[in-house]
Parts: sequence; structure tokens; C-alpha cells
Amino acid sequence: MLKIVKIGGNIVDNPAKLQAFLADFAALEGDKILVHGGGKVATAISAALGIETTMIDGRRVTDARTLEVVAMVYNGINKQIVSALHGLGCNAVGLCGADGRLIVSRRRAPEPVDYGFVGDPVTVNSGFARQLIAAGHTLVVAPITLDVDTGGLLNTNADTVAQTIAVAMSLFSTENAASELVYCFEKQGVMLDVDDDTSVIPYIDRAHFAELKSSGAVHSGMLPKLENAFRALDEGVGRVVICAAENIAKPGYGGTTIGRNRNADGRF
Amino acid sequence: MLKIVKIGGNIVDNPAKLQAFLADFAALEGDKILVHGGGKVATAISAALGIETTMIDGRRVTDARTLEVVAMVYNGINKQIVSALHGLGCNAVGLCGADGRLIVSRRRAPEPVDYGFVGDPVTVNSGFARQLIAAGHTLVVAPITLDVDTGGLLNTNADTVAQTIAVAMSLFSTENAASELVYCFEKQGVMLDVDDDTSVIPYIDRAHFAELKSSGAVHSGMLPKLENAFRALDEGVGRVVICAAENIAKPGYGGTTIGRNRNADGRF
Repeated sequence: MLKIVKIGGNIVDNPAKLQAFLADFAALEGDKILVHGGGKVATAISAALGIETTMIDGRRVTDARTLEVVAMVYNGINKQIVSALHGLGCNAVGLCGADGRLIVSRRRAPEPVDYGFVGDPVTVNSGFARQLIAAGHTLVVAPITLDVDTGGLLNTNADTVAQTIAVAMSLFSTENAASELVYCFEKQGVMLDVDDDTSVIPYIDRAHFAELKSSGAVHSGMLPKLENAFRALDEGVGRVVICAAENIAKPGYGGTTIGRNRNADGRF
Repeated sequence: MLKIVKIGGNIVDNPAKLQAFLADFAALEGDKILVHGGGKVATAISAALGIETTMIDGRRVTDARTLEVVAMVYNGINKQIVSALHGLGCNAVGLCGADGRLIVSRRRAPEPVDYGFVGDPVTVNSGFARQLIAAGHTLVVAPITLDVDTGGLLNTNADTVAQTIAVAMSLFSTENAASELVYCFEKQGVMLDVDDDTSVIPYIDRAHFAELKSSGAVHSGMLPKLENAFRALDEGVGRVVICAAENIAKPGYGGTTIGRNRNADGRF
């Protein structure tokens, strides 16, 4: 089963944690794709270059200069990760969505919020990805995509990039061969109380998610992550987990498994 | 005949010239690889980040922070070029030497000059490059390579990267199938007088080069470029040309063709 693992920005930004994660990731059996963020570094480099960062609902407003910075920063991080993986014996190839038209996107409409050069994925060149994986490569993907209308670069949410790749790589697969999507970050999973590591919710289906959302237990950045997770399941991804980066080597990854809705009789 | 084209930093740094060059490059018939620099942008971003740039004999002294900057800048430029090529209908894939171990290098000895994280190529994974080219891709290569000893990144001269790829892609080829190496830059070719565009030397062999060197007509940055050119020819590259970026679409490219030494009877 192909694994698509997304590693969050707070791990990428911490050299020791990143190296520990990459050692575990390199040792994972089977075919795998790593999608990474890098937003914290992008914000720091922007500040050093005198470019102010504006975030709306956790998403970066990307003007032309900011696009240049994120293209530099994310692809620089990409090559640092690729070289570290080679040092760990993993034959990595780093790509962004523009390479071989891996992820073609469309610029988001400027209403109700104008995010600038930000795009949502339209298609994934899964044949290109499969070809590289079949040749023994592990793909490392930076969240920069190719604008279908202009051929320019667009900044794209890394969770969405991972979900889109997982869906595309699950198409035409039998259920058992469908890919697995693992969101790794600095927390232990989806938690009832973000300050209590023991409050991890081991399993969430849509009904439970609706309750957690209306009670306010799950909020802010976790909402789009869970929406991405459910969308992946709905579109054929075999399994979706949200877990701590340090648990990637553990069987089942701990954390929170995202489930399809139960039927009235309690089965899926 | 596979073309390996290297585009110099002064073109990369000029958006209008770069776009014009890429339009011509995209239209070139046949298989092709583009190697780019980006030193001027790296120097500007370094300065903005408060990192002083030290050059010795035209080569950048690369400490740990500078390595991070050049990895960011060169790979950011790489993706800008890749997306521009897609906009021109050219199915580009951007790589640095770390991707798929495309170019593995060894860190330069610290004596007589300690250049820091700078490496000289040891091997090229030509099979990986051939596979991508056979699948219809045009490769765009950033001059960052993979340290054979540590798995880290190393900064590598782009002229040398282009020469090394051209040599590797010519191995096991018949003479007619050997690759062609074209160094494109902002000048018209190798010139007797750098301020006189009409003084282009159309053809240089080793004997002529030795004369030009001892007379001082050819000096500074042109010397390593010509050494790379002769080395490429010696190691099996079919044809080497140094020309103006705006001439890449012209038959034969104008500029200066690098020749093997004539025999005593005047033949090659």
C-alpha cells in the first residue's frame, strides 16, 4: 500500500525533530511519498527580506514577492530533505507541482478573500509519479503547483496537496491497494483538549466530527485538516490517520484514524 | 543529438532576457537539458539577509548559511524556469544533483583555498536522466549536488555541472550521437576584446587557446569556462559552443566553437 505522508511545518522547522522523523520515514517499508510544508521558515525569511506576512484563516496571502519567497524556501527545504534521505539510504527525488505537471492547479477566485497567488489542485499527473516510484524512487513534494491558466507557480496548502496526491494515486486501485494518507505533526492527533496529550480521539467518523465541531472541541487549523481527511476517504483513499511525527514508525501510527460514517447498524 | 545548454547568471537575473531565451530554448528540436546559474540573485538575497558574499577567483565561498541561501535561491529559480517552460509547451522537470543522485560530488579539499561547502562532480546518474528524457521530459538542472561522503548538499559551479552531464550523456554513444554542449551567456562568444562585439573568435583549438592565454587576450572567468569546454571535448562530447543567449535559436549558434587539436597535417 502506497503511503502518502505529510509532515507539518513545526517539524520541518526543527532540525533535530526533522532528522529523527526522516530516519523513521526512510525506514518505512514499501512505496512512499513525502509532502512537506515550510511556512514558519517562509515567514522568517520574508521578515528578514522586509516582506510582511499576512495570514487569513491560517492561509498565507501570497503576493508576487511572497510567491518568490515561498518558491525559494519550500524548494530549498525540499532539497535539504532529499539530501538527508539519501544520507539515510532512501533514493529520494524532490519535486514541486510544476515538475512534469505533477500538480496542476487553478488560482483561487479573489472573492470573498483575495489570497493572491494561491491555487487549488485541478489534476495530478499520477502516471509521472507512478513511473518514478516504479523506478525505485521516493518522492518528496513541495507545496508549489502549476497554474493551469498562466503556466506560473501558485502557492498551495500542503495538506491539500497530500490529500490530492493520495486520491489520484488511489484511482483505479482495488480497496486493498488504495493508498494510505498520514498527516504527521507536532501534536498527538485530534485531541479533545489541545493541552492534554492524553485526550487523543482514536477514531472519528463524520457524525462524531459534526458533534466535535458544533461543541467547539475541534476548531481553527484542525477543521480544514479534517475536511481534507474526510474528502480523501470519500474519494477512495484506503486509510487516513492524523498522528504525531514521532509515531510514524509505530504500527498503526497511534493518533486519530479517520473513519467512514457508520451505517445505522453500527457497521461501516 | 542531445543538447546540454547552460545559461549564465546575467541572463537568469534579467526577466525579459530570460523569457526570450526560454522561448527560443523551448522551441529547440530534440532532447535537451538546461543547466542554470543564479549567482547574482544569490548574492542579492544573501546581502538582504545580512550574509556577506566572498568570491575567490570567481567562485563563491560557501559557509553553512550561504549553502542554505544558494540551495533556496537556485532551486527557487529552477521552479520559475520550469513553470515558464510549461507555459511555452515544454514538459520540463526541475532537478538538482541530489534528486535521484543525479550528480554526486566530493567536497573540495580546504587547501590551498577553503571554499567551504563546494563540491566537484564525481558521478552522474545518466540512467535516471535518460529515463526522464525518454519519457518526454526536458530536464532543468540547478547547480547543487549531493556530497558522496556526508549525503549533504554542495554548491557546484554550473559550467562544470553542464560539462559533467554532457560527458556522462555522451558515454557509450557513437560520435554522431554524442551530446552537444552549449554555453550561453550575455556576450557574443570568446572575444579578442571583451568590449568589441565584432571581435568574436569563431573557432578555438587548444594551441590557439594556449596563445590567447599567454598573450592575456583571454583571462579571468573565461579561462575556467574554456577549460571545461576542452575537457568536455576530450571526454567525448560531440560539439562545444560558447555563444550569446539570444543566438540559441540560430543554426550553429554563432559564437565560438571549441575544436579538438589539429594534427600536424591540419586535420582533426
